[in-house]
Amino acid sequence: MAKHSIGLDYGTNSVRGLLVDVASGEEVGTAVWNYAHGSAGVILSDDPNLARQHPADYVKGAQVVIRKVLANAKRTVRGFGPGDVIGIGVDTTGSTPMPVDAAGRPLALAKEFATEPAAMAWLWKDHTGVAEAAEITELAAKMRPQYLAKCGGTYSSEWFFSKILHCLRTSPAVFNAANSWVEIADWIPAMLTGTESPSRLTVGVCAAGHKAMYNDAWGGYPDAKFLSRLDPRLGQLRSRLPDKAHTVDQPVGGLTADWARWTGLAAGVPVAVGAFDAHLGAVGAGITPGTLVKIIGTSTCDMMIAPAKQRLADVPGLCGIVPGSILPGYFGLEAGQSAVGDIFNWFVNFIQPGGAKAGSHEKLSADAARLRPGASGLLALDWNNGNRTVLVDQRLTGLLIGQTLYTTPAEIYRALIEATAFGALTIINRFEEYGVPVRQIVNCGGIAERNPLVMQIYADVTGRTMRISRSAQTCALGAAIAGAVVAGKAAGGHASFAAAQKAMTGQKPRIFAPNAKAHAVYGELYSLYLQLHDAFGTSQWHGSLYGVMKQLLQIRGRARA
Amino acid sequence: MAKHSIGLDYGTNSVRGLLVDVASGEEVGTAVWNYAHGSAGVILSDDPNLARQHPADYVKGAQVVIRKVLANAKRTVRGFGPGDVIGIGVDTTGSTPMPVDAAGRPLALAKEFATEPAAMAWLWKDHTGVAEAAEITELAAKMRPQYLAKCGGTYSSEWFFSKILHCLRTSPAVFNAANSWVEIADWIPAMLTGTESPSRLTVGVCAAGHKAMYNDAWGGYPDAKFLSRLDPRLGQLRSRLPDKAHTVDQPVGGLTADWARWTGLAAGVPVAVGAFDAHLGAVGAGITPGTLVKIIGTSTCDMMIAPAKQRLADVPGLCGIVPGSILPGYFGLEAGQSAVGDIFNWFVNFIQPGGAKAGSHEKLSADAARLRPGASGLLALDWNNGNRTVLVDQRLTGLLIGQTLYTTPAEIYRALIEATAFGALTIINRFEEYGVPVRQIVNCGGIAERNPLVMQIYADVTGRTMRISRSAQTCALGAAIAGAVVAGKAAGGHASFAAAQKAMTGQKPRIFAPNAKAHAVYGELYSLYLQLHDAFGTSQWHGSLYGVMKQLLQIRGRARA
Repeated sequence: MAKHSIGLDYGTNSVRGLLVDVASGEEVGTAVWNYAHGSAGVILSDDPNLARQHPADYVKGAQVVIRKVLANAKRTVRGFGPGDVIGIGVDTTGSTPMPVDAAGRPLALAKEFATEPAAMAWLWKDHTGVAEAAEITELAAKMRPQYLAKCGGTYSSEWFFSKILHCLRTSPAVFNAANSWVEIADWIPAMLTGTESPSRLTVGVCAAGHKAMYNDAWGGYPDAKFLSRLDPRLGQLRSRLPDKAHTVDQPVGGLTADWARWTGLAAGVPVAVGAFDAHLGAVGAGITPGTLVKIIGTSTCDMMIAPAKQRLADVPGLCGIVPGSILPGYFGLEAGQSAVGDIFNWFVNFIQPGGAKAGSHEKLSADAARLRPGASGLLALDWNNGNRTVLVDQRLTGLLIGQTLYTTPAEIYRALIEATAFGALTIINRFEEYGVPVRQIVNCGGIAERNPLVMQIYADVTGRTMRISRSAQTCALGAAIAGAVVAGKAAGGHASFAAAQKAMTGQKPRIFAPNAKAHAVYGELYSLYLQLHDAFGTSQWHGSLYGVMKQLLQIRGRARA
Repeated sequence: MAKHSIGLDYGTNSVRGLLVDVASGEEVGTAVWNYAHGSAGVILSDDPNLARQHPADYVKGAQVVIRKVLANAKRTVRGFGPGDVIGIGVDTTGSTPMPVDAAGRPLALAKEFATEPAAMAWLWKDHTGVAEAAEITELAAKMRPQYLAKCGGTYSSEWFFSKILHCLRTSPAVFNAANSWVEIADWIPAMLTGTESPSRLTVGVCAAGHKAMYNDAWGGYPDAKFLSRLDPRLGQLRSRLPDKAHTVDQPVGGLTADWARWTGLAAGVPVAVGAFDAHLGAVGAGITPGTLVKIIGTSTCDMMIAPAKQRLADVPGLCGIVPGSILPGYFGLEAGQSAVGDIFNWFVNFIQPGGAKAGSHEKLSADAARLRPGASGLLALDWNNGNRTVLVDQRLTGLLIGQTLYTTPAEIYRALIEATAFGALTIINRFEEYGVPVRQIVNCGGIAERNPLVMQIYADVTGRTMRISRSAQTCALGAAIAGAVVAGKAAGGHASFAAAQKAMTGQKPRIFAPNAKAHAVYGELYSLYLQLHDAFGTSQWHGSLYGVMKQLLQIRGRARA
């Protein structure tokens, strides 16, 4: 019988299970379960920076979606049996750490902390640790500059230690009750294999390297002396973090008997080391050296790999450069745009242009597609949610220039798309300037699949062909690929990621080639974009307007206080 | 019986007649007639720069509205008779010149030119003469720099000689058939008094001084040598223009017997020298030295006067500094913003924000009124239609900065209002920097009357009290005041504009005082506005972005070609 693997993709609002034929990559079954807690799976509060998840949803989610995909496959795949599932992979959001006790049990599952947000998982987009992030950045800049060099020069409020330090400062009861903190990307594979105790935990290099300043070059996680300077209790935590982080070709263990019973799978099925969704998404999109995988959603992740033996400079502005974070044997490089789909959604959902005709994405795209490059006279910056790469500055805002008395919603919509394309080009150029050539671009995500205007503009702006991943679920597919690799060739899986990707990934037939005439016009517009980018985004620019956006945010902060 | 005067206000789409009690300023009757020709009174063509009017509408318009206001007054004012009308004043748009024959008859009324747009009145907003305007500016800069010093440094495509020269170049048959060219501000009073022959014509200093480089300091209109350098035939036209221009306290003559018969008025009623709507509007709003009259409509005119005996510097960026153009004995100073109401209308009518809830001005204003200054983090430039004062640059465009993923239509609407307020403050500052103190601000126009949010923001931004003219028809009222002055005291009118304004103008009781706290926030925002203003609007600014808007317009021009 054909062998299959399962990818579990833990998102912000739901978990997806995907059952894949490891020989063909055929996706024979998929199931989604929406988290039960909070608002669409996210626990919120009066503090707009707070976003948590309840770990009970991780447990139930795996049970539900695995049972569902198996039941579906039994109905639709002739002769399928759960015993044909040979491996499991897991991807999650991140950095999403949570406090656990000495057994590795999430504190939120204990009665005393059942309704305490600090005891839950601190979702990637939780920004409560802004002050702590600044503190960590400042200390590292003085004491351990090498820590910052690998994460773009700034330690983010979204990341592991910012969140833990904020908990220590603001919810000491939770901090003191915790034995350790675990990324859910590590905790979920551990839960499936009964290895969740901090003393036995296997952590992935993806989360550790991109979000927790882990690097083998300096002995793993940041040293205790550094952490102690932030707070002695954080220094003590260091000894309970693992010494070594692992790549996704490693299994963390085999499925426990309990989980076998709960799901119908065979006990002992190997579960791969977990990683973040974007990283396994890049795998599922067929990432190779020279391939840029753009995962386009509300924001983007722009993923590349470079051979680990290559001498790679620190690339300023990249979110991270981590050996093995995407594929073993390669540097994983992560760049991104803070908002792409979110900017289009803002225009459609908040501005709601077009009056009673109600400008939908479809209508605006159709109208915008009839416009010629440059014909609106508009130019925008794609900074409504700050700029992740290359400026690494959340305190930037949007800009639209060129409006007349006749500017239309479709013209603005197109200018916003173009702005995100200019942002994408800036990332491509940054990769190439630092020795990482971009020879192929593979896009994935709903916008790439459903909006040909966006893809054509991206092609025209960048002067490069836009390709689209065959799978609509590249993250879950990447996790399933990891499952097929840890299963191993002998069990019917794959000996390597290269072999697994070759068998299991692909591209859609429709490609978007650049139009030379449009590209020439966009070349002119891009040079103007860069002028605005540097004027408002960098303090080095002579006659700088660098302060304008920041002062507006300061004034706004006071006005809203 | 109470004495009355009539103001005729020729606008872009219609003509208004206003019958006013000269002792009290009470507006006892008003009538509006929409022009019959073209689209809402404007003849258009494929050329988006072309805008003409048919002079037949001027003739019929006067007949209709005068008869209507008299009929109304007979019904509503006890004992009223047409013999109680002692004077007439006229204001019009401008520069709106038209070609006439030797009898002063508009060429458009001749059969051979009945459908020829070049033979009609070239409406103020006709921009077909862009190339000729540049040519005139260039020649004057070299040959007669003094001509430019009084009109802000640039001769506009909207003005008298640009239009005539364009006609000469593109419609020579019309140019050759014309004996002369007359502003409708001069032609309409001449038509009422039978003095329209070029050899007898009385021209006003308002149109001549602001639009045709007329100045007594250099002998009136530009000299024949200068005009001949543009084209010898233009030089020949010079001899058929009057030697002397007059102020609005002078009558051009008495109503003809024909017009008395057509209207029911007494023959011989004096008709004042004509002027532009904004100038007589300033009179109707009670302009005095130290009073800035803001006529706020789709754009604004910002009018001041300064004693003619004052030594007044040339104020850079002002549309004009013309002795007697508003009131005899004073410099008339005209500044303005290229778009104010038009920007709000653009947002409401073109962007149509708010989806099915259809953001109206009322709804957006109500929502925007609940926002605190600075709380949106937004800042805009009010340049969607270029910048008249102080930059005198039509090739500028709008800018909005500070958008996030949560920015709302009401926030943008408020930012657009604030932008126009910052533009207004820039004009106030420019007046004061050049020795024309602003001690009082009187607003008129529909926005001033109907939108208290706009007035409060203007007060808060400028730190000055906003007052509103009592009359909703200040232009027509100003014309009626001119009628009352040329009637003279002996006939029951007034001996001077000062006396007439005292009796006939006033302010509404509601004033808008600045809020100190809001003013402080706006002070910060204004300093950021100025940074953007100088960066994008001036080439002197170091690290200039001056080219960005201009290059966008160039790219747009090529893309649309």
